[in-house]
Amino acid sequence: MARRKATQPIQEFPLIRQLQRRFERRSPLVRKGIGDDAAVVSIPAGDWAVLTTDLLTEGVHFNLCTASPMSVGYRAAMANLSDVAAMGATPRFLLVSIAIPPTLRAADIHALYRGLMSACDRHEVRLIGGDTSASRQGLFLSITLLGTTPKSRALFRNGARVGDGIYVTGTLGDSLAGLRLLTNRSSSQRGTALKKIARDFLIDRHRHPTARVQEGLWLNQGRLATSAIDISDGLSGDLRHLCEASLVGADIELSRLPISPACRAYADKQKVDPSALALAGGEDYELLFTVAARDEQKLERQARARRFLVTKIGTIRPRRFGLHSLAFDGIRVPLPITSYRHFT
Amino acid sequence: MARRKATQPIQEFPLIRQLQRRFERRSPLVRKGIGDDAAVVSIPAGDWAVLTTDLLTEGVHFNLCTASPMSVGYRAAMANLSDVAAMGATPRFLLVSIAIPPTLRAADIHALYRGLMSACDRHEVRLIGGDTSASRQGLFLSITLLGTTPKSRALFRNGARVGDGIYVTGTLGDSLAGLRLLTNRSSSQRGTALKKIARDFLIDRHRHPTARVQEGLWLNQGRLATSAIDISDGLSGDLRHLCEASLVGADIELSRLPISPACRAYADKQKVDPSALALAGGEDYELLFTVAARDEQKLERQARARRFLVTKIGTIRPRRFGLHSLAFDGIRVPLPITSYRHFT
Repeated sequence: MARRKATQPIQEFPLIRQLQRRFERRSPLVRKGIGDDAAVVSIPAGDWAVLTTDLLTEGVHFNLCTASPMSVGYRAAMANLSDVAAMGATPRFLLVSIAIPPTLRAADIHALYRGLMSACDRHEVRLIGGDTSASRQGLFLSITLLGTTPKSRALFRNGARVGDGIYVTGTLGDSLAGLRLLTNRSSSQRGTALKKIARDFLIDRHRHPTARVQEGLWLNQGRLATSAIDISDGLSGDLRHLCEASLVGADIELSRLPISPACRAYADKQKVDPSALALAGGEDYELLFTVAARDEQKLERQARARRFLVTKIGTIRPRRFGLHSLAFDGIRVPLPITSYRHFT
Repeated sequence: MARRKATQPIQEFPLIRQLQRRFERRSPLVRKGIGDDAAVVSIPAGDWAVLTTDLLTEGVHFNLCTASPMSVGYRAAMANLSDVAAMGATPRFLLVSIAIPPTLRAADIHALYRGLMSACDRHEVRLIGGDTSASRQGLFLSITLLGTTPKSRALFRNGARVGDGIYVTGTLGDSLAGLRLLTNRSSSQRGTALKKIARDFLIDRHRHPTARVQEGLWLNQGRLATSAIDISDGLSGDLRHLCEASLVGADIELSRLPISPACRAYADKQKVDPSALALAGGEDYELLFTVAARDEQKLERQARARRFLVTKIGTIRPRRFGLHSLAFDGIRVPLPITSYRHFT
């Protein structure tokens, strides 16, 4: 682990060790970081450990033509931070493995790590280890994040009950709009151009999403949410996952979906329904969570006091109700089985 | 994590979920396994967490022409189990990510998981999560293993002191001999053929190495070892790592290296020095450890009682001594900078 394989042909491997050492931050919780057979860390006494891992593949999850290596690193770390946030846990330790194709330059690897660590530093997450390998074709990035949460306190997907309010943090659809602005140059310039400030906002929301770690901790520690999931595959897909785990249905009001002014302006220019962007758009990394009816007022009061943006978008229904959305014309239709399409 | 990306083109992804569910074992320590944003596990109160990760690449770390998918899975898990063993910790939870090339058949993935889990089941390690992705070329396997150890009790590389005895578990060089039998068919049949029982033993030692988990726990909990590392890159390379971390030198007696009868027979047939196989041969996954002079008798007595094979092979010397080996002719020479060459 984190040791150089003796015969790996790639010159970047000593570089990776340098990078890992450079980005290793001291912490009293890290008993042994990079450089032994394994890393050793303290877990706050009695806490549960929360573990998530992602394997990201060039050409499937990211494309180095439209995303800088720094942005790839940042978003990879943020996706894992978001998974830990959705459990209501504190993210703490990161392991990074990377398979490097011959085409990748040392400067790109530097930038990738800078991106990873800028996401981690925001949440005081420590790089404690990893591995490196050669890849014949394409960059592969494997990230494992360990978080902690007090014993018996975690937000699962399966706790939603009939009558619970359905909430989301932040605004939805921004990341998808940003991605489309980056990839479809021609269509983005159709009609009147989007104002630069809106365009920059949407692209930044795509490149630098924010894991809702503080919001997750608040929902978990205050026992406010009955269930939670992060929106990585799109509201439509992730609501389905949550309802399947909880054995319930859901009724969403499209008029309530939180859409940013920039996303609304983009949708107007493109002549698309902004709620379609919100339903299908993945990688917003907002939290989708449910709240018992009796706690909704308390939740909204606390959110205002903490300046967290949370929006009620619907209600949990019995399983036989299925998943429906109430459209602007007052007609209730089955929630489309759309989900975020990764770059392919 | 462990969720199917909506648009991954590979039909194996539902299969992976089936496999992961099939191989998920119940345990009171697993609070949430596969199927949420993250896995949640209990850590024995006050214990430290021990984390190791490996990224294995087809064509670099393994070759599906000479190794079956089951053997690849088994050896990948064992390499990580060995890292945790070298820390003296108890291995507990496994995360497996896999990037699947279009050429890989569903049956191969089944076999890979069977191999992984047969290694894990021996040590009651639980599969708690992972991720899947497509790969345009070659299989990539990323494994993360979490172990635990009582607070302030772990075996590090940097504890060796001048005068300590240098020990290894088991026998050395078997895995390299087995690999050569598998890859160099012509040379293996040079001269009189190796007896089938010896050949089978060496190939099995290559395909099914044993992580020395029980030995590591014994060395750690009995406070018998001052430092430890597992032999994954070859004795010569890993002794160098241990000495660099401990800022010491070492003197090895080649005549003391534990060589199995099968490896000795192989070396005789091939007209090579068996100690060269022992020094250079990686992936034996034996433990290399150091013991304070005053504890050597106690260690050897306890090892006999427990039927653990341990062999003293040398002594820790001051750093300025460097790394030397005493050959059979009584001449002391610098330890060669040979190290295991991964399959390339």
